[in-house]
Amino acid sequence: MSNNDICNVAIIGGTHGNERIGLYLVQKFQQNPTLLLRPSFSTTCLIGNPQACIENQRYIDTDLNRCFLKASLDNNLLVKYEEKQAKALHQQLGPKGNSDTFLLDLHSTTANMGLTLILVNDHSFNLHLAAYLTYRNPLVRVYRWTQADQENAFVSSICQLGFAIEVGPIPQGILLASLFQQTEALIYQILDYLEQVNQGSDLSFPRHLTLFQHLEVIDFPKTPEGELAGMIHPECQGMDYQPLNPGEPLFLTFEGQTLCYDGSATVWPIFINEAAYYEKGIAMCITQKQDISLQHN
Amino acid sequence: MSNNDICNVAIIGGTHGNERIGLYLVQKFQQNPTLLLRPSFSTTCLIGNPQACIENQRYIDTDLNRCFLKASLDNNLLVKYEEKQAKALHQQLGPKGNSDTFLLDLHSTTANMGLTLILVNDHSFNLHLAAYLTYRNPLVRVYRWTQADQENAFVSSICQLGFAIEVGPIPQGILLASLFQQTEALIYQILDYLEQVNQGSDLSFPRHLTLFQHLEVIDFPKTPEGELAGMIHPECQGMDYQPLNPGEPLFLTFEGQTLCYDGSATVWPIFINEAAYYEKGIAMCITQKQDISLQHN
Repeated sequence: MSNNDICNVAIIGGTHGNERIGLYLVQKFQQNPTLLLRPSFSTTCLIGNPQACIENQRYIDTDLNRCFLKASLDNNLLVKYEEKQAKALHQQLGPKGNSDTFLLDLHSTTANMGLTLILVNDHSFNLHLAAYLTYRNPLVRVYRWTQADQENAFVSSICQLGFAIEVGPIPQGILLASLFQQTEALIYQILDYLEQVNQGSDLSFPRHLTLFQHLEVIDFPKTPEGELAGMIHPECQGMDYQPLNPGEPLFLTFEGQTLCYDGSATVWPIFINEAAYYEKGIAMCITQKQDISLQHN
Repeated sequence: MSNNDICNVAIIGGTHGNERIGLYLVQKFQQNPTLLLRPSFSTTCLIGNPQACIENQRYIDTDLNRCFLKASLDNNLLVKYEEKQAKALHQQLGPKGNSDTFLLDLHSTTANMGLTLILVNDHSFNLHLAAYLTYRNPLVRVYRWTQADQENAFVSSICQLGFAIEVGPIPQGILLASLFQQTEALIYQILDYLEQVNQGSDLSFPRHLTLFQHLEVIDFPKTPEGELAGMIHPECQGMDYQPLNPGEPLFLTFEGQTLCYDGSATVWPIFINEAAYYEKGIAMCITQKQDISLQHN
């Protein structure tokens, strides 16, 4: 990046109305804008799904964080609450793929994800920032949720620069002070990084990144009628980002039978037992751990 | 109790539709009724709030577990979904205060409540059973949510015999295999106790009980406009059933200020940071720890 490339930063909280840390952080920033003040860029805070936040629900009609396909944004026949809200956010922050805004979208999860950056592209700027943040805070993990030949539909896909921040474990509908403070500190660290890049500072950190690359999703065991037939196995629960080897316990049926992972190679599951993913047929996401070397900018 | 006093047992799950352990346990029992089979009594399983379970919400119109005041049950003008459902459950299990059914109502919570029995009366049979269960399993806690001169409105208040089982911590909307299995084992232990009492067995256990008596509820810090102004303090989070002394940290405001407990004596908080209680203005319930000696029956 050349100097002063980042002029506008947007921070979105409450994209899911029952993920309260992002919502209350954005409200705190809106009431105390000096917290975000940096000399070389301006920062805007937005509430992604205001009505869902009022109702303390993930969404009203459909998941806002799946509404950002270009074709959907261009389709005037889509008039669900979130489809309209997606168009409004896109109007403000887009156009998708050609925006110079740096975007942070704040999420939380019932899974043991710690502080996760969710990248939806391979932009070198994001990879360097991720490498910097993991170097400064070893609790930060990097998950790249890209799928070959498949356009990403997340809020964060509007902009090339930036990513979603996913923190957990935390139940839906509550605040946890520890995660609130860790998320807040991470945001300040990101803003400070952007400021230093804009100032032309030569930031010293290893150009190396451990990244968890999305492979596929795994559903819960189901009955022939499609009903839930089991749970995450106690030995798998909370083991996000830990290696899972073929033959190791994955699920426990309601009758007490252990079902094991039948893949052919070690994988690293994440989003294990995320509440909102039951209805999506996702018990966990399977990733591959990758060590990546980055070019100096 | 004399022999064979318990003829009917009812187990209710899904009184709150997003508390999934009770729901799936009841569905398991309905599909495998032999699990509950005991020679001296019959056991019925019910889903408390079927529509809320379908929608994976605590309730549709109003909290079913606050609908069991006698005056409400007799009031034909109350026609909300849960008010009608309460009348149907009361019709089946009541009349309130004069039913011979032994009732278990299964709940779960985001608070660190372990395996809690919630008593809503002082019936000697319940106290002895509670003493037996805490003796057999030291993880079991006993909370008596009675308030002087105030009628209890919980589902479990229909019957004199029985109580609610409250397990946690668990996020709303998910299953945790460990708590599922612990709750299931606790239910079998209760059924086995009832069977032995009915058979006239002389059960050997200390006639002593540690009981947490409800004192009052404490709300979150609020702004003058009534908005949330802070969170449970990290040092208080998860410390259910642990002593809280005057001057110890209770809340952390969004600005980072610690608010301390300003009571005059040691108390034992429970239901700390229960998701469903935010809307009720309850950050935690304050109890007093009591050691009680019971008369031999």
